[in-house]
Amino acid sequence: MSKAWHLISRPQGLPTMDNFALRELPDGPLEPDQLRVRNLWLSVDPYMRGRMNDAKSYAASFQIDQPMTGGAIGEVTESRMDGFAPGDMILHMGGWRDGGVVGLDMMPNKLPADALAAGLTPQTFLHNMGLTGGTAWIGLLRVAAAKPGDTVFVSAAAGAVGSAVVQIAKAREMTVIGSAGGSEKCTWVKDLGADAVVDYKAAPVLTGLTQALADLGKPGIDVYFDNVGGEHLDAAFATANDFARFAICGMIDVYNDGKAQEMKYLIRTIPARIRMEGFIYTDQFFDCMEEFYADMGGLIASGAVTMRETVHDGIESVPDAFLGLFSGANIGKMLVRL
Amino acid sequence: MSKAWHLISRPQGLPTMDNFALRELPDGPLEPDQLRVRNLWLSVDPYMRGRMNDAKSYAASFQIDQPMTGGAIGEVTESRMDGFAPGDMILHMGGWRDGGVVGLDMMPNKLPADALAAGLTPQTFLHNMGLTGGTAWIGLLRVAAAKPGDTVFVSAAAGAVGSAVVQIAKAREMTVIGSAGGSEKCTWVKDLGADAVVDYKAAPVLTGLTQALADLGKPGIDVYFDNVGGEHLDAAFATANDFARFAICGMIDVYNDGKAQEMKYLIRTIPARIRMEGFIYTDQFFDCMEEFYADMGGLIASGAVTMRETVHDGIESVPDAFLGLFSGANIGKMLVRL
Repeated sequence: MSKAWHLISRPQGLPTMDNFALRELPDGPLEPDQLRVRNLWLSVDPYMRGRMNDAKSYAASFQIDQPMTGGAIGEVTESRMDGFAPGDMILHMGGWRDGGVVGLDMMPNKLPADALAAGLTPQTFLHNMGLTGGTAWIGLLRVAAAKPGDTVFVSAAAGAVGSAVVQIAKAREMTVIGSAGGSEKCTWVKDLGADAVVDYKAAPVLTGLTQALADLGKPGIDVYFDNVGGEHLDAAFATANDFARFAICGMIDVYNDGKAQEMKYLIRTIPARIRMEGFIYTDQFFDCMEEFYADMGGLIASGAVTMRETVHDGIESVPDAFLGLFSGANIGKMLVRL
Repeated sequence: MSKAWHLISRPQGLPTMDNFALRELPDGPLEPDQLRVRNLWLSVDPYMRGRMNDAKSYAASFQIDQPMTGGAIGEVTESRMDGFAPGDMILHMGGWRDGGVVGLDMMPNKLPADALAAGLTPQTFLHNMGLTGGTAWIGLLRVAAAKPGDTVFVSAAAGAVGSAVVQIAKAREMTVIGSAGGSEKCTWVKDLGADAVVDYKAAPVLTGLTQALADLGKPGIDVYFDNVGGEHLDAAFATANDFARFAICGMIDVYNDGKAQEMKYLIRTIPARIRMEGFIYTDQFFDCMEEFYADMGGLIASGAVTMRETVHDGIESVPDAFLGLFSGANIGKMLVRL
């Protein structure tokens, strides 16, 4: 009998363990176009917080007393779906559970055998070759149209998306300033190749960013890859060069508290002609999937892009792993291994 | 002897009469590439406030004890510049004065004789055929890429730029919601063709905008043309449809006080994939000048785009006219007639 984490109440502010319950899933024979799957890796991502609200967003809300969903890597154990056979490794959206029935609505896709044969681990498709790496690549190169020579600022640079942004930008000959909280994360961001690191726990973001730009002899930033909003975003407005582009990927600072953001430098939008654009991976991914797999696969194969994983073990640990995203507990990609 | 308004101290917050003094300009024979001009019409515009600060902006700061500049229509009385002769009507940047010497740095351009012959008044080149109409046209059609069928929200809709936006949008078969302060301005915006008007002095902007959308049976806005920032901009974030485009032209609410803007709905940038872009008329005008003159000239000739003028008389009234921009004293374009 498979078990899945259900949402049993909507969080007010920061989610807690009380919002979730691990319950058994109904069992039974497969219908046509269904698979039975044993999950091996589960993804937890900040965007899931938005789906816990009962509000219109880009993804439908999770429903109360229903199982949560999310990215997962599983092995097919039984198939009534064309093109899938027992033993296949698949990426699908039936996460937050140890296995069960996967239908077409969970978008199962076989992992490319050649990539696995070349040494990519299956869970890479939950980060650098999937949602987080794709978000980094699309946001940096397509939304912000970053190009060699640009000065790029990226927040949450020790996170799954941010650390991919740092490495893709360096591979493309940009100057990169990453921000992260605390010396351990900052050291890792520097090790990834960032030219400068801003420790937002040590000083106001704008102070640190201004100092980093001065140290690098740069007048300002050309690109901002935003994962957090708030003070970081305002510091980006303050230091933007003319015609700077901001790719807005996440505002984790305000996901939970819903408070107003105090923007002192938003007015620089006009004199600096800043373009700020929100984007979502799935809008653009299918347009550029082949280019992304070829380019990102090459960067990973060459060692230009690596990923550190923060791994929790066991189905019981999923909510803990998820809550850790909001307390800065992860370096790199937060995953659950089953 | 010509006289010009000089900036004698930098305003802190809202400018006052004490920041300006009317002084005589030095006189003497013309150098090569100079004109002598008698001014007929002067423009005052909100962007001039930014140039009174000693801060890096898109236009150089005005200097203390130097004459102010700005758009003006004048008649050439003496010429040592090729292509110009006494009697020519010109648009140039030697405003805030009753006349004097105009060099190449003041960008003199002859008004097109055919447009004048067709009945366009000279001062039209200070608004609908110039800076404000061009700003409206570029911001709406190029920056925000507004198209027929879109729902457009425009703030300061009774101002020079806003009233042009309302009319261009209506001529292009868009649904238009304008905001203005007080019933006289709101009535005028409605008369211009706006489908709904939000009186920001009568209720919070978001309340009025939400009601207007409900009355029109529209789910949200596709385009926001921002002239004010602050509460209006936040209301636009709150009501944006997916893939909405915001053209940011001015933030007059914060030009003087420099306070932080409280943005409660900025976070909708991501789920609604909003694109916000600051722009400046002069960056784009020369790229599209011919298309603009042809299109806007046609809209004016057909009566689709009109302009109300708020006219002050005499060189002494220039600072009053300018200060009136920040107290909402103008309907349409604020001008000084000499």
